[in-house]
Amino acid sequence: MNKSKVDPGVLRNFCVEILKAEQFCSAADEIVDVLLEADLREIPSHGVARLKRYIDERNSGHIKLNTTPTVEFETALSAVIDGNGGPGQCVSRFAMGVAIAKAKADLVGLVSVRNSNHYGITAYFSEMAAKENMIGVAMTNSYPLVVPTFGKEAVLGTNPLSIAIPYGSDSFTLDMATSVVTRGKLEVYERLEEVIPRGWAVDELGIDTNSASEVLENFNKRRPGGILPLGGSGEDFGGHKGYGLSLVVELISAGLSIGAWSAKTYTGGVAGVCHFFGAINLELFGELESLKESFQTIIDGVVSSKRAEGREKIYYHGEKEREARKRTLSEGINLDPKTVNMLLMLGDKHRIEIPEAFLQG
Amino acid sequence: MNKSKVDPGVLRNFCVEILKAEQFCSAADEIVDVLLEADLREIPSHGVARLKRYIDERNSGHIKLNTTPTVEFETALSAVIDGNGGPGQCVSRFAMGVAIAKAKADLVGLVSVRNSNHYGITAYFSEMAAKENMIGVAMTNSYPLVVPTFGKEAVLGTNPLSIAIPYGSDSFTLDMATSVVTRGKLEVYERLEEVIPRGWAVDELGIDTNSASEVLENFNKRRPGGILPLGGSGEDFGGHKGYGLSLVVELISAGLSIGAWSAKTYTGGVAGVCHFFGAINLELFGELESLKESFQTIIDGVVSSKRAEGREKIYYHGEKEREARKRTLSEGINLDPKTVNMLLMLGDKHRIEIPEAFLQG
Repeated sequence: MNKSKVDPGVLRNFCVEILKAEQFCSAADEIVDVLLEADLREIPSHGVARLKRYIDERNSGHIKLNTTPTVEFETALSAVIDGNGGPGQCVSRFAMGVAIAKAKADLVGLVSVRNSNHYGITAYFSEMAAKENMIGVAMTNSYPLVVPTFGKEAVLGTNPLSIAIPYGSDSFTLDMATSVVTRGKLEVYERLEEVIPRGWAVDELGIDTNSASEVLENFNKRRPGGILPLGGSGEDFGGHKGYGLSLVVELISAGLSIGAWSAKTYTGGVAGVCHFFGAINLELFGELESLKESFQTIIDGVVSSKRAEGREKIYYHGEKEREARKRTLSEGINLDPKTVNMLLMLGDKHRIEIPEAFLQG
Repeated sequence: MNKSKVDPGVLRNFCVEILKAEQFCSAADEIVDVLLEADLREIPSHGVARLKRYIDERNSGHIKLNTTPTVEFETALSAVIDGNGGPGQCVSRFAMGVAIAKAKADLVGLVSVRNSNHYGITAYFSEMAAKENMIGVAMTNSYPLVVPTFGKEAVLGTNPLSIAIPYGSDSFTLDMATSVVTRGKLEVYERLEEVIPRGWAVDELGIDTNSASEVLENFNKRRPGGILPLGGSGEDFGGHKGYGLSLVVELISAGLSIGAWSAKTYTGGVAGVCHFFGAINLELFGELESLKESFQTIIDGVVSSKRAEGREKIYYHGEKEREARKRTLSEGINLDPKTVNMLLMLGDKHRIEIPEAFLQG
């Protein structure tokens, strides 16, 4: 694929200028920061490629810019926040900020959020807490794409879940969709005209399929069928476990905030996405350095265990993303031609100076 | 399989008498209560079938009976507890009791435990909190049987994780090993001389295998190989996610308690199993009845969605176990002949009167 390498700082400024020209005002910086973090980690599905979609969602009224999140209920250790339809990144940085402030003062901060929007990579928010030597928890429900075990209707979102735990100078960060794959992965297979493995998705009867385009077409036509939970079809490979994790994300995000569960998101002109953020201060369990050593012993023990035949390395979670980040910070971010074209179009629309890297691309 | 049906009360008394005769004293009731709860739910792998094993572990010094758990570190919201080698059920009921008491007083209770033993079904402890209108969290590390993604050495336990959330007059209870299957399932396939599906386990080179006996023999001979994390081999079906969940369980149980991680359990004559218990009071998020309604809306919405072709029902987590419990409470518990023989042998050893049900079996 023909790709352009762009300096992260240049890309950031260009995207912020676009969003500001689109009247995103003070939200522009926060949104681009979170999107750029995905591109730095080479997770393009959650990167600046989303810019146009966010602009469309602002136009359709799903993303509201003249609002700020409000705290609807609060204790020393918790809050329920109404995002009031604001951009997911802004609502979520605010909400995790509240959780962290509570965990600094009283060791625990648990914040449930309703009526928000897509927030980008989940790890961004869990790592906000890990940077403060806390265990960070973040999760969100999302547009319904996933079928429950023994079901055929996509009523659950891919419902990602992230847990970040301080490790070394950085963090162990698990960030996982509770589905076996994401819609983005199906789109890649469709583009390449490759069959998808059985265990990823089901057709409109709820039967395993290996056609990505069938699943995507069913989504578009709002017919039954969808992506399977982690563990796949039925119970033989633990599909009911992935389904359970997905339900936990629903109950903790939409349930605790009394917001819209995934099947009800993006209905009636409202996105209504719900999140949950937790910050757990390590002071709850003793002396910080001893706890960090304890984490290190475990992770080092696992990654230094014997490798399977033909495998180069056992990774811990967040390690690949960290390596990618180092690479992109020094070498630039790879953008696919579709994303470059979208950015050029938006830059052109607002007569913003096009970064040289794009012109050389 | 030839099975005996036994009245739960009769079985309970018989098992308590056996453990008392084996000098388990006051621990006997607590241990049997937790084991029986598994049999009531038709999870025989964690039921009274374990009695002999616990007696053996007491004999080998892994389970210590002359100790009580001690609180080694404490805040208003948290505790680190040393199980001092006591029976897992007793240590864990005590630890979850501490978590619940803290969550009653201050809305959150988080308790990390080191130096304990096998505790039975994880759901038992998460549901202790759910019964108090709290969200209950329980997890434990365990004897190493699971290989990390791209690894071939079983350094992780099956590391189960349970989350219980009040629902209706009962609870939604997810209770899942973070591995794709448990050792018990491999043993069933070995007994039936059936091949296991690819994606369950790897051989001593770390390559997928369909031989249960190969995997079990490798365990016995302490050779590499083992069970795969939820999501299976490699990353195509999300095996790295199951591996990540397993690591989270290690970091939260052994990491926070500075105890033994799975690879180090059952070494040097010490079991050293680590747990974590959390109790989250729903008062943190508003009015109880509104929150319970919110949970109900979500769960009811999911289970009433369209069923896949050929499927009778979409379950929520804990529902099958609840149905089984109703059945066994009225019809009796099914025990397999091996378990009946073990109990008869122990009853005979201590000249305890044998329940009639066993004699008719």
